[in-house]
Amino acid sequence: MRDSEYRIEHDSLGEVKVPSHALYGAQTVRAMQNFQITGRHVNDMMYISLAQVKKACALANFEVDELDQVRKDAIVIACDEIISGKFKDEFVTDAIQGGAGTSMNMNVNEIIANRAAQIVEKPIGVYDFIHPNDHVNRAQSTNDIIPTAGKLTVLNLGELLLEEMEFLAETFHAKALEFEPIIKVGRTHLQDAVLISMGQVFHSYESVVRRDISRVQHALSEMQIVNLGATAVGTGINSVPGYREHAVTNLSRITGKSFVSAEDLIDATKHIDGFAHVHASLKTFAIGLSRICNDIRMMASGPKVGFNEIFLPEKQPGSSIMPGKVNPVIPEVVNQVCFQVIGNDATVSMAAEAGQMELNVFEPVLFYNLFESLEILRHACMTLRVHAIQDIKVNEHRVHDYVEHSLAMATALVKYLGYSKVSEITKQALKENKSLRAIVLEQKLMTEAEVDEALRPEAMIHPR
Amino acid sequence: MRDSEYRIEHDSLGEVKVPSHALYGAQTVRAMQNFQITGRHVNDMMYISLAQVKKACALANFEVDELDQVRKDAIVIACDEIISGKFKDEFVTDAIQGGAGTSMNMNVNEIIANRAAQIVEKPIGVYDFIHPNDHVNRAQSTNDIIPTAGKLTVLNLGELLLEEMEFLAETFHAKALEFEPIIKVGRTHLQDAVLISMGQVFHSYESVVRRDISRVQHALSEMQIVNLGATAVGTGINSVPGYREHAVTNLSRITGKSFVSAEDLIDATKHIDGFAHVHASLKTFAIGLSRICNDIRMMASGPKVGFNEIFLPEKQPGSSIMPGKVNPVIPEVVNQVCFQVIGNDATVSMAAEAGQMELNVFEPVLFYNLFESLEILRHACMTLRVHAIQDIKVNEHRVHDYVEHSLAMATALVKYLGYSKVSEITKQALKENKSLRAIVLEQKLMTEAEVDEALRPEAMIHPR
Amino acid sequence: MRDSEYRIEHDSLGEVKVPSHALYGAQTVRAMQNFQITGRHVNDMMYISLAQVKKACALANFEVDELDQVRKDAIVIACDEIISGKFKDEFVTDAIQGGAGTSMNMNVNEIIANRAAQIVEKPIGVYDFIHPNDHVNRAQSTNDIIPTAGKLTVLNLGELLLEEMEFLAETFHAKALEFEPIIKVGRTHLQDAVLISMGQVFHSYESVVRRDISRVQHALSEMQIVNLGATAVGTGINSVPGYREHAVTNLSRITGKSFVSAEDLIDATKHIDGFAHVHASLKTFAIGLSRICNDIRMMASGPKVGFNEIFLPEKQPGSSIMPGKVNPVIPEVVNQVCFQVIGNDATVSMAAEAGQMELNVFEPVLFYNLFESLEILRHACMTLRVHAIQDIKVNEHRVHDYVEHSLAMATALVKYLGYSKVSEITKQALKENKSLRAIVLEQKLMTEAEVDEALRPEAMIHPR
Amino acid sequence: MRDSEYRIEHDSLGEVKVPSHALYGAQTVRAMQNFQITGRHVNDMMYISLAQVKKACALANFEVDELDQVRKDAIVIACDEIISGKFKDEFVTDAIQGGAGTSMNMNVNEIIANRAAQIVEKPIGVYDFIHPNDHVNRAQSTNDIIPTAGKLTVLNLGELLLEEMEFLAETFHAKALEFEPIIKVGRTHLQDAVLISMGQVFHSYESVVRRDISRVQHALSEMQIVNLGATAVGTGINSVPGYREHAVTNLSRITGKSFVSAEDLIDATKHIDGFAHVHASLKTFAIGLSRICNDIRMMASGPKVGFNEIFLPEKQPGSSIMPGKVNPVIPEVVNQVCFQVIGNDATVSMAAEAGQMELNVFEPVLFYNLFESLEILRHACMTLRVHAIQDIKVNEHRVHDYVEHSLAMATALVKYLGYSKVSEITKQALKENKSLRAIVLEQKLMTEAEVDEALRPEAMIHPR
Repeated sequence: MRDSEYRIEHDSLGEVKVPSHALYGAQTVRAMQNFQITGRHVNDMMYISLAQVKKACALANFEVDELDQVRKDAIVIACDEIISGKFKDEFVTDAIQGGAGTSMNMNVNEIIANRAAQIVEKPIGVYDFIHPNDHVNRAQSTNDIIPTAGKLTVLNLGELLLEEMEFLAETFHAKALEFEPIIKVGRTHLQDAVLISMGQVFHSYESVVRRDISRVQHALSEMQIVNLGATAVGTGINSVPGYREHAVTNLSRITGKSFVSAEDLIDATKHIDGFAHVHASLKTFAIGLSRICNDIRMMASGPKVGFNEIFLPEKQPGSSIMPGKVNPVIPEVVNQVCFQVIGNDATVSMAAEAGQMELNVFEPVLFYNLFESLEILRHACMTLRVHAIQDIKVNEHRVHDYVEHSLAMATALVKYLGYSKVSEITKQALKENKSLRAIVLEQKLMTEAEVDEALRPEAMIHPR
Repeated sequence: MRDSEYRIEHDSLGEVKVPSHALYGAQTVRAMQNFQITGRHVNDMMYISLAQVKKACALANFEVDELDQVRKDAIVIACDEIISGKFKDEFVTDAIQGGAGTSMNMNVNEIIANRAAQIVEKPIGVYDFIHPNDHVNRAQSTNDIIPTAGKLTVLNLGELLLEEMEFLAETFHAKALEFEPIIKVGRTHLQDAVLISMGQVFHSYESVVRRDISRVQHALSEMQIVNLGATAVGTGINSVPGYREHAVTNLSRITGKSFVSAEDLIDATKHIDGFAHVHASLKTFAIGLSRICNDIRMMASGPKVGFNEIFLPEKQPGSSIMPGKVNPVIPEVVNQVCFQVIGNDATVSMAAEAGQMELNVFEPVLFYNLFESLEILRHACMTLRVHAIQDIKVNEHRVHDYVEHSLAMATALVKYLGYSKVSEITKQALKENKSLRAIVLEQKLMTEAEVDEALRPEAMIHPR
Repeated sequence: MRDSEYRIEHDSLGEVKVPSHALYGAQTVRAMQNFQITGRHVNDMMYISLAQVKKACALANFEVDELDQVRKDAIVIACDEIISGKFKDEFVTDAIQGGAGTSMNMNVNEIIANRAAQIVEKPIGVYDFIHPNDHVNRAQSTNDIIPTAGKLTVLNLGELLLEEMEFLAETFHAKALEFEPIIKVGRTHLQDAVLISMGQVFHSYESVVRRDISRVQHALSEMQIVNLGATAVGTGINSVPGYREHAVTNLSRITGKSFVSAEDLIDATKHIDGFAHVHASLKTFAIGLSRICNDIRMMASGPKVGFNEIFLPEKQPGSSIMPGKVNPVIPEVVNQVCFQVIGNDATVSMAAEAGQMELNVFEPVLFYNLFESLEILRHACMTLRVHAIQDIKVNEHRVHDYVEHSLAMATALVKYLGYSKVSEITKQALKENKSLRAIVLEQKLMTEAEVDEALRPEAMIHPR
Repeated sequence: MRDSEYRIEHDSLGEVKVPSHALYGAQTVRAMQNFQITGRHVNDMMYISLAQVKKACALANFEVDELDQVRKDAIVIACDEIISGKFKDEFVTDAIQGGAGTSMNMNVNEIIANRAAQIVEKPIGVYDFIHPNDHVNRAQSTNDIIPTAGKLTVLNLGELLLEEMEFLAETFHAKALEFEPIIKVGRTHLQDAVLISMGQVFHSYESVVRRDISRVQHALSEMQIVNLGATAVGTGINSVPGYREHAVTNLSRITGKSFVSAEDLIDATKHIDGFAHVHASLKTFAIGLSRICNDIRMMASGPKVGFNEIFLPEKQPGSSIMPGKVNPVIPEVVNQVCFQVIGNDATVSMAAEAGQMELNVFEPVLFYNLFESLEILRHACMTLRVHAIQDIKVNEHRVHDYVEHSLAMATALVKYLGYSKVSEITKQALKENKSLRAIVLEQKLMTEAEVDEALRPEAMIHPR
């Protein structure tokens, strides 16, 4: 950099060259030099969350007389600007960073301090009026700010995910109603089993998603318990009485969410199992969602040498070499998202387990994975719904044909003829390529009326 | 086998030689031949659960006139004998088995059928009066019996685990009270941080365990929703109206637990994410428990070149070569249990994801891991409590000495002197091996009274 | 215990009651009390390995004049007895144990010391002539003995596994030859693709297994590098010059394997990534094997509403409720073994990562998983081969029928008609349920001779 | 888009609006609409690789007379431009995509086709002279192109990683030499053990990294075996004799790497375990690297209440609240990279396992994780070396002090006094806070000369 392009800042380790016009400062520059790992910045939602937390703290400091009105106002205005979407390109530290998030915290502190300086018409990079640590970070520590902002981010991303999960559940519900009358052959062990309706199949998918909505919601509720005000290790050192209560109340008001102070602030500062718990609920959803996509791809297999029970909407030519091929690319991409989430869960588990003594310094990688899982699952739900589920059609002809020719009704004969006898005639039917009905009548095991009653498809699919 | 040592049974695949006196029959023998994998049988608790489910079903079949009193009575007596602990060595199929648990289901059906035959003084291995399928398994399928018995087993093992988790939490609570007055230096990033009390540290461990108790309880509650009566795919085929309601009610009465029928029986038959959800809660607990053990081993490190803040009870000579060494073998074994549980979670996830169409056939391996996790976590909690936590002593001399000589009070000076100044004098103190107090007074930054007030340890450790 | 039932032994922690006739001693009893986790003992193969290592060390100590002939002989005889299979029920410590395997090491030391005492007609439980530490464990530490015996065990179990993998590969090879002439429709994305032969499919399975054989072999080769003689931390403290070289040479001779001393003994003592590397190769095999079983289950799906391309041998009646159903229970059990191995890999990774400073104390849980994976994969290979692969039959009628009616030949027309045109006629064929041939001729796009040449199945399946 | 801003293209599904000046075309646009998942594009290295593969294929098609010189030349020039770094912003499909990579393949095909059109002064978006499928993708399928380009990318990223691993190993080597004379107390179970030198500790880290270099190299060697020319399922359909050999030879020449055709092309097309095998080697490295960082953080713990044996270079002010604190942020970030890689391995395993029939469609997510792991491990090695290892200093005073005051020499007395006696005096020494030497002399167990010889630190640390 030429001299005119940077300013010199100082921190406890010495001099740092900072780009002249940057709102971030020395510590951000150090972080950019130290952490060149993923090439990706911390999620923007976290940036907004941090500004909301900073605003809540500035107001609290003002309320307990630890910050004067001028500084408070300047800081709050700067925060509001960030919250409204400004200065995103100043939030630049690598998503995977050491220091438990100190760098992302200081990045925001520096942006706010410098922007606040501009607001009160002071030069940036000087910090004599508004200091990133003494004022913006007043009564705060990375160790309470980062988990709190992380929880806020998870809640926000979680709500967006839940909304898409809800839409997906509703779409499965609509398809369940639409496919209610279509009776098909069920499969267990991939082997022909008994009858079921296509509506029941899609209803079962709705049930999975609804159950996962409930699990994710329940796990997210832990995110409302924060250690804001706990400062370095949970004892609230360097904060004054009343500050913590004000800060939490302010945060609730600013965000519209109901945050409460953790009862055990030491615990809430050192342990990050709550995030792991949320991610575990996402993993459970990924398990269910992947399983659904596996089924959909299998039911759509064909057109000539597969199950061919459903038609997926055609989204792109399927093959660069095989003309006319249309592949189930949408469930395929959703499967992959699920694999990603399940793998992310392993990283989250390791990060949460690896905390030591009064802190877990591995939050950045945990957040990187947790935020990603929340986002890609949301995109996957939307993609699956819009590009696949809502336009699925049943190949009614094929499905009906299967019912006609399968041996799926054998089970229904057990109560008339006993398990062993039915085993025998089923094998015979398969071998001689005859229907069960034909053999039963041939061998005079039942009358025609009895057989008709016994083998009525509609009677077989309703849970008693 | 010599002729006298076996009897011949027949099933749909042909003849099977069964040991003469065995209560199990042909299908069990086939399973023993087919599945020689782990050398371990299915968990005994599952055996008891299966007998309880079978009893509930026999009574239900009687109640809906699908089973006569003689057979019902014989089956119920046989079930009660199993429940009381008999015939455990007849429950012999490998823990990892194909067929979605058909083999363990048939193993129990055969034991009950033959034992019931004995009770009514009929020969075993014949099944003309009481048949494993037609009577014992009446209106049942592996596909509703195995998940239901699995849930009952998880509930039973879960309660035992919760009890030990509760004991562990109470022990941490007692130690927290005991260590309340002992102030120590907290560590973040493994670097000296601010003061904290040893009581707060142990209280934080209690908080983790209590949070996990709540999570495990919540996850276990899903286990009360069963698909009993759903039979093969959830439609209840081959059961008569009323049977399902009776069976579930009977099961609740027999086990003393409140079971309810799943609203969506198709879903409840094909999806086993509920088990994965329970295991995820165990994994989250394992994360927390392992982290606690890591800390305990670190605080116990020494005696001369470690932290040496706590003394663990000596459980065994530590080394086969280094005399006098005493190792933290108890937290070490607990760490390993946690690693096992976290690994088991990966297996459970894969098994739950791999279900296809109307069934998930991978329940046996899921159960193998879920039951193991429930058991070894219980043993780990008990082991940790009895052999370590309850007899931990604090090395008060060392801990106090640390407080005296550390720079942990630096933070408390920030509000008096500002972050930058305190950084400077902390570095100086470290370099010149002086106390912060000495330097502050030397440089006349504060009066003695101010310093005394600022650096009072007791004042630093209480959350405001 | 009544007085007559036990003897009193002493160790550095005090008195211990040991069953009178037990060959194990005080430290084993402590271990049994301390570690009640899995209810399973350490693998018997490890017991044999430990005795072989102990024998090698006793001989080495004799060779460097650190052990007299009488004691050496007695110890060697005791070791030989163990190696020949005796005293297995004395090897009793829990598979998951703290102390880095000190308990299993001392268990063996005690058995050998007491058995050696019997051999020289001394009382057991006294140790004044032959001491478990001073003589049996002479110049040894848990920290070199356990990894060395672990590697020997892995090599032995690995060879057994490789043998079964080889048999499996050969069986796939035989089936590949058998099915060579059978042309079928290939599927990509589960959608009909181009032609392939069933022989090629089975040959691809052989290729996977052979590749995994090579990987497992390569990983196992690291197991020949041992830290025997490194004692506590790798410096060989308490051993005399020459001892290490003798011990390693002896071990090679006794076991028939070529062991070499690690060049960096510090590294070889503290790092257990070699075991993780072996397990990773097993995990990769599990990935391949599970994928094969997924395909086999899918090709066997049916009989009426599935692919139904192959017939698996019938191993057991498939369902307790659906008569005549035969399920793919063998590939199902193999899938589950693979899930188990993939989960075990996560545990192994965590255990290997968690080592600290001069030792990794988490070997017991790593071994528990590594030994299990080696064993269950072996059983899975054998089970899959004997009970499924070797008796698979192709449903030639169905497979041929598929070839006739599919659109799999479309790709072969591209070079004649271009991608876009073929896309168009493929869609038309599907819609109008006509053959491609018919449409091509109808539209006079090619002559009959050209079409015949273009659509010859045999021409399509041979890689150029 | 306004009319002037886009052009209309057609594919087999209908009309697509493509931005007027885009080199990509209809299928890329469809992919952008279908796959909005991660917000990240496929790795740029893959783009370069794809262009190299396309060039190799164009030349091969020309060599076998399937492509005329004008088209060949235009395609090759377009490829060379991409290889030189042009048009990166045209490579736009989401990193996680369905369709097995068809979208990224077609994205490149379209860019090349349009760019080639420009080169021969034809309009873009028309494809009548150079068609993305018929010419650029001639004799190719996504199913051979994507795995081949993936392998090339892995080889390139792998070489960059290996280079950084080598640098890291060399740095550990240099530090091992530097710290050779510094004797310290070793720790096993985190408990004081016997002596070792700091040089040995750092040498052990070198050994780990060198072992992992060898493993990664070995795994990477599988990447040279490609299925280029296998087309859709391995049979090479739509390619002419000789094409495959030319294509592979060309690719080797263009890239400077030695590629060979897979012997079993069916296998090489459907199975992607080779990628999983490479990732497993990265995971093993991550295990070792994380373990090293754990140790470094622990040795650097302090300054007052930790081990404090080494000084890490100060990279940033450690805390936003605790002045003067300097945290081990560099090993912390490396730990997190390792957790990420270990988690990525789970995703890779699931993706590799989930392949079905003649293809594994889950390569995109596998690549996303494999490429990330290769890159972040490289960055982690560089970061660790430059920002931490090369400037580590030993706190010699502290380390020496520990040696003086520890009981680490106890083991050295065992061969003089026996295990039991030494246990006793070690306990006494600890209790009475005396040195072992003092007690041995006090009790006249050895002469002074004997003790001096026995307890000479230098003698203890050299492997015999």
